[in-house]
Amino acid sequence: MHDLTRELWLKNDSKIVLLVADGLGGLPLEPGGLTELETARTPHLDALAKRGVSGGSIPVKPGITPGSGPGHLGLFGYDPLKYQIGRGALEATGIGFELGQHDVACRGNYCALDGEGRISDRRAGRISSEESAPLARLLAQVAIAGVEVFVEPVKEHRFVVVFRAAGLGDHVHDTDPQKTGVPPLDPRPADPADTAGAKTAEIAREFVAQARKLLAGQPKANGLTLRGFSARPHLPSYEEVYGLRAAAIAVYPMYKGLARLVGMELVGKARTLSEQIDVLEQRWNDYDFFFIHFKYTDSTGEDGNFQAKVARIEEFDAVLPRIAALEPAVLIVTGDHSTPSLLKSHSWHPVPTLLVSACCRSDECQAFGERDAVRGGLGQFEAKYLMPLALANAGRLGKFGA
Amino acid sequence: MHDLTRELWLKNDSKIVLLVADGLGGLPLEPGGLTELETARTPHLDALAKRGVSGGSIPVKPGITPGSGPGHLGLFGYDPLKYQIGRGALEATGIGFELGQHDVACRGNYCALDGEGRISDRRAGRISSEESAPLARLLAQVAIAGVEVFVEPVKEHRFVVVFRAAGLGDHVHDTDPQKTGVPPLDPRPADPADTAGAKTAEIAREFVAQARKLLAGQPKANGLTLRGFSARPHLPSYEEVYGLRAAAIAVYPMYKGLARLVGMELVGKARTLSEQIDVLEQRWNDYDFFFIHFKYTDSTGEDGNFQAKVARIEEFDAVLPRIAALEPAVLIVTGDHSTPSLLKSHSWHPVPTLLVSACCRSDECQAFGERDAVRGGLGQFEAKYLMPLALANAGRLGKFGA
Repeated sequence: MHDLTRELWLKNDSKIVLLVADGLGGLPLEPGGLTELETARTPHLDALAKRGVSGGSIPVKPGITPGSGPGHLGLFGYDPLKYQIGRGALEATGIGFELGQHDVACRGNYCALDGEGRISDRRAGRISSEESAPLARLLAQVAIAGVEVFVEPVKEHRFVVVFRAAGLGDHVHDTDPQKTGVPPLDPRPADPADTAGAKTAEIAREFVAQARKLLAGQPKANGLTLRGFSARPHLPSYEEVYGLRAAAIAVYPMYKGLARLVGMELVGKARTLSEQIDVLEQRWNDYDFFFIHFKYTDSTGEDGNFQAKVARIEEFDAVLPRIAALEPAVLIVTGDHSTPSLLKSHSWHPVPTLLVSACCRSDECQAFGERDAVRGGLGQFEAKYLMPLALANAGRLGKFGA
Repeated sequence: MHDLTRELWLKNDSKIVLLVADGLGGLPLEPGGLTELETARTPHLDALAKRGVSGGSIPVKPGITPGSGPGHLGLFGYDPLKYQIGRGALEATGIGFELGQHDVACRGNYCALDGEGRISDRRAGRISSEESAPLARLLAQVAIAGVEVFVEPVKEHRFVVVFRAAGLGDHVHDTDPQKTGVPPLDPRPADPADTAGAKTAEIAREFVAQARKLLAGQPKANGLTLRGFSARPHLPSYEEVYGLRAAAIAVYPMYKGLARLVGMELVGKARTLSEQIDVLEQRWNDYDFFFIHFKYTDSTGEDGNFQAKVARIEEFDAVLPRIAALEPAVLIVTGDHSTPSLLKSHSWHPVPTLLVSACCRSDECQAFGERDAVRGGLGQFEAKYLMPLALANAGRLGKFGA
């Protein structure tokens, strides 16, 4: 699609707003019941559903449950099967670490080793974040000649390591053996003939050796494994593929990071949805496109808290009049995936999606909800087609062929 | 899909009619209102919608607005992203010039040059067709040794040049600099090592030199630019990929030309829809497949004339009993794209589509219109899948795999 949009995009003065309620889609608690979104009182979303066109967004392919990375890349119009971000790079992105071109990142897990150096607990007893954060500072003492090493804490037993040096490759095998009773694997290049991968593996080996000494006295976390070695992913920018000056108004580092990967600028320092809309209003004239991310529809779903998710959806609904008042040419409301409280996890179900524009060809949907949406005028579509639809509705795509 | 249909097609006595109302899909003038098709009184289409199965045809991909070329190739079952026809070849096709295997066509624009040879108007003041037609006859005097040169008028400032000689290539850059105040570019091969492209560029250079002399005294159009150098596109024929003897009953050269490119035979000399149906009746026993093209649903949409488009749809509806009386095994009614009067241009919106056969598994649609169609039994589908559906419904596709 980017080959097409890159050729066909046009510039004009229109504004596009992509409003993402993370994990928006849900399930009823009882068969035949209402989902979280159908239960919530959402007068503004329902009014938009009457004016706009609805559909069900399939994040990747039918039946495939995405993580946040592929979920957002799809919404941003990047084929999530083509652009796969390594776990290390995604984890670094998630904590707001901006990878440079000479960096290779990997995800670390603290583990517990027995007296023979065999893994006895792959997650170090799910050590708390409070206990693990100082360990990252300890590991930051590792010194390797010619290499800058960054160690950053994530949640619980997780951390991120970034190696920065010229000539590094990321084709390096994980060191996690995926079972207990055996020692961690040695870092090895996927292809021994690949000198860049071999260099990274050598550095990782040295890092592990020093780290083991630094962790030796720890009661829970005296070992570590490394996974998902990955360099900075190369994604063409929004400016390049869509001709859009794009801004991201997000609170959490993961979504800021994903937006940065496609060349959006991070604007504002909002900590609440209301502050995010303040930023939108303040920066309205500076950009063509705004990505606004709302986290709590996902986290309440992950918690399995149906009523809390309903309440968060109502909070989300309440800010819509402020966005509509700005009169964007195209307003899209969607999610990066479903997170049904019933499942307490992301899921594969199509995400209710709404597009409003003056030429959207509205359908007969009278409310915004899962069952209405999948019968709407957008039908069921892969998320990656949403951005071409946004551009078309904004008059920003020329004709293909004569 | 052609790899599949080529293997699976079967012959039988069934007849398939593909009735294309160009630019059929539309938009309401007011949000929540009716489209042109929904406004029109179409008792025969509505009766067919009750008997048949409806759907929304996506011409290329969601959000992509096609020109007539990709729009029709999609309906004919040829992936419009795979088979891209160059502008010169399409323009030649559009005026009924049948390109041979040694031809390279390009689209010419008359322009106005100032005393220094710089372009002052890229379209020669949009010179009228009456004024520009004699210029093509003037340019037909160009004589280049070893090359047959054809110059054919198109509308207003446009014309087509075809060079016919052995060993020509079409990888030649446009000479239109896309701005004024600079002279036209020199014809250059895209790749200097490509001798076929270099030969065409050399011939084009000589053509331009002679043409400039012939146009020297012209008040408006004393210069020219050349764009979209392209050879005859190679598309497998309907006989080859579908096993169909196919006839095209069209009035306008563009659609005749596109049909010829896929191996349809042009039958009759109809000038009106009613005459087209006469031809259909007369030639019913001679072919398996009939493509009938109706232009005016598009041209009225392009004019922004909602009521005229409604009237044209009603005219179109009125001939359906004559087609139905022939009892085709499969009757399809669709468009190559939408042309909403509101937008006065082609658009990306799904095109209402109807398929009637004895085994089509009809849906609950009670009328033929945009909102009904996209909820119909065909769902929303890419246009390129319509021909396999037509063949299947005609009993002309065998089983895939054992």
